[in-house]
Amino acid sequence: MVAGTARLFAIIGDPVGHVRTPIVFNAYFAEHGIDAVCVPIHIRPEDLEAGIAGLKAIANLDGFIVTAPHKARVMQMMDQLGLDGELVGAVNTVRREQDGSYTGTMLDGHGFVTGLARAGYEVRGKRVYMAGAGGASSALAFALAGSGIKALTIFNRTRERGEELLARVKAAFPAVEVAFGTRDPRGHDLAVNATPLGLEPQDGFSFDVEKAEPPMLVAEVLMKPETTALLHAAAAKGCRIHQGKHMLDGQRDLMMAYFGLARPAAAA
Amino acid sequence: MVAGTARLFAIIGDPVGHVRTPIVFNAYFAEHGIDAVCVPIHIRPEDLEAGIAGLKAIANLDGFIVTAPHKARVMQMMDQLGLDGELVGAVNTVRREQDGSYTGTMLDGHGFVTGLARAGYEVRGKRVYMAGAGGASSALAFALAGSGIKALTIFNRTRERGEELLARVKAAFPAVEVAFGTRDPRGHDLAVNATPLGLEPQDGFSFDVEKAEPPMLVAEVLMKPETTALLHAAAAKGCRIHQGKHMLDGQRDLMMAYFGLARPAAAA
Repeated sequence: MVAGTARLFAIIGDPVGHVRTPIVFNAYFAEHGIDAVCVPIHIRPEDLEAGIAGLKAIANLDGFIVTAPHKARVMQMMDQLGLDGELVGAVNTVRREQDGSYTGTMLDGHGFVTGLARAGYEVRGKRVYMAGAGGASSALAFALAGSGIKALTIFNRTRERGEELLARVKAAFPAVEVAFGTRDPRGHDLAVNATPLGLEPQDGFSFDVEKAEPPMLVAEVLMKPETTALLHAAAAKGCRIHQGKHMLDGQRDLMMAYFGLARPAAAA
Repeated sequence: MVAGTARLFAIIGDPVGHVRTPIVFNAYFAEHGIDAVCVPIHIRPEDLEAGIAGLKAIANLDGFIVTAPHKARVMQMMDQLGLDGELVGAVNTVRREQDGSYTGTMLDGHGFVTGLARAGYEVRGKRVYMAGAGGASSALAFALAGSGIKALTIFNRTRERGEELLARVKAAFPAVEVAFGTRDPRGHDLAVNATPLGLEPQDGFSFDVEKAEPPMLVAEVLMKPETTALLHAAAAKGCRIHQGKHMLDGQRDLMMAYFGLARPAAAA
C-alpha cells in the first residue's frame, strides 16, 4: 500500500493507458520490499514543457521512464545525457542526480540485446537485418553496433532516413559493416521488425518474412499482440522467434540499476 | 497493483512523509474496485509554481489534496473556488473540471464537523470555544459557523489575528455571536485546540483545560499523538474527548464526493 513515505517513479507518454511499466516496476518494488511506486503519467505534447518542469519540482520523484511521443523532446530538457541518449538522439530513462540535475539515457536498445542474451542468443559477430529507421530502430542499431555485431543492414520505406541512420552508426562504430537493404532478409543471422507494422491486423509485413529460413532468428519490437503475424509467419518457416516483450523485460533490471535500485534476484 | 490505466490523485506538501492520505485513499480505492492511486508528492515552497503547473499538465491526474505549507498559495492558482475556499482564503482539495479548469475548496472544517457528527455530536446551536487563529482555525471557524453554531469564542496569542478572523466570520455569518476570549474555556459546550501546541511533549496547553468541566466536549485538530496531553487532561476532568484523526476520517468521504468517487459503503 502506497504511504506518505513512498519514493515516486513514473512513465510519461501520450497515450499511457497501454503501458506495462507500472506493473513491472511495482511488482519489483513489492518483491524487494522497496517503498516506492511507479505511476502512469499522461502528458500531451502541448503540455510537455510544463509537465517535465513539474516532474522536476517533485522532490520525492527519483526518476521516470519516457515513452512515445516524448523521447526526443525530453532529451532536450536534460542537464546531462548518457552515451546512448546522445547517440540515439532520444531518451527513455531519466534520473535525478544527487546534485538535483537530471540525466537521461536510452535503454531500449540495450533492453533488446539483454532480452536476446537471456533467451540464449549472443549478438556479437552476427549479421543483423532490421526493418525500420525510426526511434526504435535507432535505439536498437546503436545498441547492437555497440554490442559487437559484424554487420547491420537496414531496410526502410524512406531510403534517405535509413541511410542517414546507417551513416550515424558507422560514424560511432566504424568496425560495423553497414548497408541499405531490400525487403529480402536472406544472408543475415537475425532479422528484426522495428517498425509499427503489425500493431493492426490488416498491416502487412515490413519485410519478406516468407523468405526467412533457419537458422535465422526473427525478432519483434512490438509487444501487442504478443506473437505478431510476422512472428507466426517466421515460425511457419521453421525459424526461431523472439517476442517484443523481452525488450521490456530486459530493460527492467537495466532501469533499476540506473535508478540505483538493483537488488539480488529473489530466491526461486 | 497500479497499472497504466490508473487515474491519479496526490497529496502535496512539504514535508509529506508523515501524511496518512495516501493510505486512506488507496484503501478506499481498493475496497471499491476503483482503478486509481493516490501518491505523496513532495514539493518545496520555491518549486510550488512549477509543481502545480506540472500537476495541471498531467491529463490522468483528476485531483489533489494540499497540505502545509501550500494551502494559501495554491488557492491563488485556481480557476474557481468553492465557497469555503473563498471564505477561508486557502484550499486543501483541488479537482479538475470537465472543461479542464481547476476548482479548489477547503474541506478541513467540514471534515471536523462531519467527524463530530459521526461521533454523535451535533454542533448546531452550540457555544464553541477555539484556541488558535491560523489556517486550521479559519477552516474550522467558517465550517462551524456555517453549520449553525450559536456562538464562537476565539482565543489566540496574537489578539489582532483572532479578532480579524472573528470579524470575517461575523461578516459571512451574522447570526453567530462572536467574541475574543481568554485562556478560560468555561461557558462553552465545545472547546477545540486548533493550534500546533501538543505536537511536542514539552508543549504547554493552548488554553486552561484544567478548568474544563462536563458536559463540555474537548476536541483536537492534532493527529499525533492520537490522544494529546490536552485530551488526557480533559478526560481526567471527566470531559468527553474527540481526537484529531476524526477530522481526516470525516474528510475522506467529503473528498471522494468532491472527486465524483462517492460509493455506497461496503457491507459490514
